[in-house]
Amino acid sequence: MAINLENYLSDNAKNMRRSAIRDLLSVATRPEIISFAGGFPNPETFPVEELKDIVNELMDKKPKEMLQYGSTEGSVALRREIVKRHRADGIDCDIENILVTTASQQAIDLVARIFINPGDTVVCGLPSYLGALQAFYSYQAVPVGCTKDEEADIVIKALIASGRRPKFIYAIPDFQNPSGETMDMAKRQALIDVARKYDMLILEDSPYKDIRFEGTSYPTLYSMAPERVILFGTFSKTFAPGFRLGWVLASKEIIDRLIVAKQSSDLCTPIFCQEIAASYLEKGLFDKNLKNTIDLYRGKRDLMLECLEKNMPEGVTWTRPEGGLFMFVTLPEYMNARELFDVAIQENVAFVTGDAFCCDGGGLNTLRLNFSFASNEQIVEGIARLGRAVKRMLK
Amino acid sequence: MAINLENYLSDNAKNMRRSAIRDLLSVATRPEIISFAGGFPNPETFPVEELKDIVNELMDKKPKEMLQYGSTEGSVALRREIVKRHRADGIDCDIENILVTTASQQAIDLVARIFINPGDTVVCGLPSYLGALQAFYSYQAVPVGCTKDEEADIVIKALIASGRRPKFIYAIPDFQNPSGETMDMAKRQALIDVARKYDMLILEDSPYKDIRFEGTSYPTLYSMAPERVILFGTFSKTFAPGFRLGWVLASKEIIDRLIVAKQSSDLCTPIFCQEIAASYLEKGLFDKNLKNTIDLYRGKRDLMLECLEKNMPEGVTWTRPEGGLFMFVTLPEYMNARELFDVAIQENVAFVTGDAFCCDGGGLNTLRLNFSFASNEQIVEGIARLGRAVKRMLK
Repeated sequence: MAINLENYLSDNAKNMRRSAIRDLLSVATRPEIISFAGGFPNPETFPVEELKDIVNELMDKKPKEMLQYGSTEGSVALRREIVKRHRADGIDCDIENILVTTASQQAIDLVARIFINPGDTVVCGLPSYLGALQAFYSYQAVPVGCTKDEEADIVIKALIASGRRPKFIYAIPDFQNPSGETMDMAKRQALIDVARKYDMLILEDSPYKDIRFEGTSYPTLYSMAPERVILFGTFSKTFAPGFRLGWVLASKEIIDRLIVAKQSSDLCTPIFCQEIAASYLEKGLFDKNLKNTIDLYRGKRDLMLECLEKNMPEGVTWTRPEGGLFMFVTLPEYMNARELFDVAIQENVAFVTGDAFCCDGGGLNTLRLNFSFASNEQIVEGIARLGRAVKRMLK
Repeated sequence: MAINLENYLSDNAKNMRRSAIRDLLSVATRPEIISFAGGFPNPETFPVEELKDIVNELMDKKPKEMLQYGSTEGSVALRREIVKRHRADGIDCDIENILVTTASQQAIDLVARIFINPGDTVVCGLPSYLGALQAFYSYQAVPVGCTKDEEADIVIKALIASGRRPKFIYAIPDFQNPSGETMDMAKRQALIDVARKYDMLILEDSPYKDIRFEGTSYPTLYSMAPERVILFGTFSKTFAPGFRLGWVLASKEIIDRLIVAKQSSDLCTPIFCQEIAASYLEKGLFDKNLKNTIDLYRGKRDLMLECLEKNMPEGVTWTRPEGGLFMFVTLPEYMNARELFDVAIQENVAFVTGDAFCCDGGGLNTLRLNFSFASNEQIVEGIARLGRAVKRMLK
């Protein structure tokens, strides 16, 4: 009586990729393992008492709205707060430019859905965020990577010459995931110029921009070319991922298309979560907590850098991110991070191998470390373990 | 500088349909309008005080889990409660058979995504739930309708003969949306037989099954053929839509594919909402509240039937649902429900025209009435207004 599922699956389904992180994490569930694998915010940053008060207040004030269906575009109150933040950042926008999404993963998915035809090429970084790659694959896109931002022009020109014109460039300009690197002003301008030259869209994924430890913030790509940039924001790293709240900032025309896509995708994001977030922002609690989060993560970054310095053998290098959640480690050429992973698991420490972020199958001697989630004690002990594992792999 | 969006859109995007309900509702926002258009549960059924207590309790007990990322498949606690309910209904299943979704709209979307290739046919009712049709269109499926369940065999045979073999049948066996009709045992068995005969899947959309006013409940299609039925459940009608919680019940093999699709779609459904729902179910509050909801809606159905009897002219007929949220009205052949809608809006009453639910463009003389949301006073006054509008259309 059993059916043969393969006979039914869509071409999209056949092209989907499991999350490498998910598979790695499932290996790394033993409690003695210190994990630098996920992209989890630190639970110390969760504003528990404030949120309890907010829920109680909202359930007294407007329970019927909290528990009923919301609109597809999202809570007006929340969109107003998002607009306020973007305006403070020098962006000219209104609530019609905002679509609230079930965190930024859905934002990427919806944008991929309305733009990608099977076989379409998409330009991204080498490495780049694997969740975005997953979304692109699920619509049968072909991601084509650039090792450096400066390569975008050449890569796009070559794709067009081969009849594979890409529709958009996917970029994470601030504290890139996984590299931790930030595009400077010249690189931003160059990317905009390339997009204009070839009449392409830019997807600006911006989950970490608010989490800057030092240096000065650069303008968003959106502010530089609002007609062709689609920005993804999220509250998962700066507030609480448990609410799954993100948004798209784009032209009204694009937002309108995304609303239609979201209608059939999940109708609306939980209004219960949206109203809590709106109130949290309205009360000014977000900015206060963000400052503490930045201080906490800066300390963890510094500690991890110090531990890497102390524990890593010669020939291993790493990025020094000015913000965000991740740093990226490059091993000697001959070393394979997947093999290192097995050794590291024996040493009770976990990370994500860099190849998961590389659409060209490269990055074999790289790995990503998250520094936001682990306690300071775990960072000290975990990097010592990782150092031992790397040393066991030395030739 | 403006871009021409049409040049970028995917074929999926071009095939998407806006929700007719959304457009109708946007016309019907004046406060004096009584709306029978949406599918909203009655806010009187929302367990506000119980939910406040639960949130406070959970935020004291496990705030870090409430606010952190959850797993893609959903909270273990919530899946256990869903399994318990299905087992009580005679279904053999385990938590590996359950995927928690951002309400059942996402469940339909994910299933469409993993099965539909552009141009694939899908068999559904005439009429059928428009949100499902929207999801199918968004992957370029071609829905083919059956006026009666008995027609499925002939329709599928014809499609196969023409080289357009459908992959699945979409059915709402209990208190169908919009018709309000329920499939009896013979019809259920016949549908299963047809699916087996042509080796097809069945999508069993089951949002209303728990809301039965009278008569005896029939077994789910899933219980009759678990190897080829995928069941969609939701808490939107029996608990609170503001949490956006639904689920898929299917074979482990299918759930596994859906997990991969959900990873790239929105990673996970808010764990905050899931834990609240799990606790609400664990405490037995769900069943207690469900009883009250059923009593409330039975009264509203009876009242609406009575009002239709009193106010509708000869030649107008309607269904008498044994449960659920909707009844379906058939006007005389010559009457057009879209034209009636304009007259009804003048009379300050709104509904959804039946053609929105018909993939063949038919159903022009039909309309859907929701009886769960309006107050009793609004039902009395609203149906009187609708009666006046219909009478103005009489030839």
